[in-house]
Amino acid sequence: MAVGGDNDVLKGVWCPALMPLDTKLDPDVSRFIDHCRWVLDEGCHGLVMFGTTGEANSFSVEERIRVLDAAIDGGLPADRMVVGTGCAALPDTVQLTRHAVERGALGILMLPPFYYKGASDEALAESYDRVIDGVGTDEFRLILYHIPGVSGVPITPELVDIIQKRHPKTLAGIKDSTGDWDHSKMLIERFSDLAVFPGAENLVADGLKVGGAGCISAGCNVNAAAIRGLYDAAMVGDDIIKRHTEVERIRQILQRYALIPAMKQMLADAKGDSGWARLRPPLMPLSEADAAALAADLDAEDFRLAA
Amino acid sequence: MAVGGDNDVLKGVWCPALMPLDTKLDPDVSRFIDHCRWVLDEGCHGLVMFGTTGEANSFSVEERIRVLDAAIDGGLPADRMVVGTGCAALPDTVQLTRHAVERGALGILMLPPFYYKGASDEALAESYDRVIDGVGTDEFRLILYHIPGVSGVPITPELVDIIQKRHPKTLAGIKDSTGDWDHSKMLIERFSDLAVFPGAENLVADGLKVGGAGCISAGCNVNAAAIRGLYDAAMVGDDIIKRHTEVERIRQILQRYALIPAMKQMLADAKGDSGWARLRPPLMPLSEADAAALAADLDAEDFRLAA
Repeated sequence: MAVGGDNDVLKGVWCPALMPLDTKLDPDVSRFIDHCRWVLDEGCHGLVMFGTTGEANSFSVEERIRVLDAAIDGGLPADRMVVGTGCAALPDTVQLTRHAVERGALGILMLPPFYYKGASDEALAESYDRVIDGVGTDEFRLILYHIPGVSGVPITPELVDIIQKRHPKTLAGIKDSTGDWDHSKMLIERFSDLAVFPGAENLVADGLKVGGAGCISAGCNVNAAAIRGLYDAAMVGDDIIKRHTEVERIRQILQRYALIPAMKQMLADAKGDSGWARLRPPLMPLSEADAAALAADLDAEDFRLAA
Repeated sequence: MAVGGDNDVLKGVWCPALMPLDTKLDPDVSRFIDHCRWVLDEGCHGLVMFGTTGEANSFSVEERIRVLDAAIDGGLPADRMVVGTGCAALPDTVQLTRHAVERGALGILMLPPFYYKGASDEALAESYDRVIDGVGTDEFRLILYHIPGVSGVPITPELVDIIQKRHPKTLAGIKDSTGDWDHSKMLIERFSDLAVFPGAENLVADGLKVGGAGCISAGCNVNAAAIRGLYDAAMVGDDIIKRHTEVERIRQILQRYALIPAMKQMLADAKGDSGWARLRPPLMPLSEADAAALAADLDAEDFRLAA
């Protein structure tokens, strides 16, 4: 059975884990492991280590390897991890991918090289070719990471076609972080043999109906149980509207703020641990005013985070 | 005398050197040193190592350190080098900056962290603060790198104000790669105590008239002598139109093609060394058709590269 084709494991509600930081703004591995355990306990099917939500590209290769080692050695399940590895420089992507594959990661979420803009599909396909060659094995599940609003480098459907043709055994999925339902729907329908993950929980129910994989959604860091509840309801086709509405009211609040700082602030407040609110520049904590407004918004919805 | 304030040395025609690659698409240090020597011999005042033209962010930190060491150990003058060091991850920027400062580089050209888009000026200022803190010395000349069309992260005038206020001794200049004369003029006039380099040779003459520093221009890789001639003419206010026209006809041809691949192709053709045309993905060599068209365009202008 092809590795990429064997993507039934790539289903469900996946949490792109936030990365708590210490006073030096270095990754705080102990807090990180605790947080990952909690979102799994809350019902997430798996973890995405080093996504955009986890400030991945703000950390060096050495930092990323050290944290992943510590997380797995600390007991987090590698077979429930998708690891983000895409960097601007291909040797960095190769090194991170090889390491994650060696550590038994279930999948690899890979940005295209993102410094230069306007690269052709062929140029990006060549980039993926070279990474796979460099890793030295194609025995891993590759998930393409489409987040053009941040990376500036889209994964077009035509690029997916090229990669699927060249690496049918390896290509396993696409994360679509556009937040655009029409785009996610198109990908799900066009690539029905791949695991297509919308990047937000509000697309879980519609996505599952047409064959989507679930979601890889930042919101899982603060609302995992409800999002898992929505996923389960959508799988059996029951109670969907109520579950969707419950999830959506929190997502709508978060949308008013800078998302990553807002979620870190929520965790800081819930845990009474102000250190959780730290971010590495260029990301910055919420202003005091925004932090207070966020808390008030959540209070108004009677939302209590039991982190 | 403040280091940054002592920026009379930051003047003239600077070449953001192309990076030749070997068959593995790794930096070819020997070809690189030869090329750098040649552009200096042709009249460039200095070299920019690891700019966008040099595919900097396509190389790992280790590769960049190795190449810079080899270039300096191979005899290239560190005191005529500005070294690009800005990465997405601040620890990488710190490491590259510290190394370049320790090796005696004349200046540091620093991109802001460029993965996340939409960072506030304060967040970017904080990023520069943290790099300077991390380097452990502010005794270097910092040149801010404004290339929003590629990096996606602009250096606004307000950001320059903040950095100048916090690091008056360190901040020495700005490279403005917009190609927009109105923008370069604004920066030159507003920051008259900084070395403001337009990113293209067609702005040299107008820039010098209002106090610009010269140019850091990709075109110096293939047309250094003529660009230096234009600079010298503009400095004395004589023969400018003829010199400008001579430079501009080549720049206009290059504009029709992907710039970095086109210049590498020109060097490959001139040297009879097809290896010079290699690029690391996501950049790609010109198509055969484009390479032929470029050669024909240059022939039509009777332009011979004596590399």
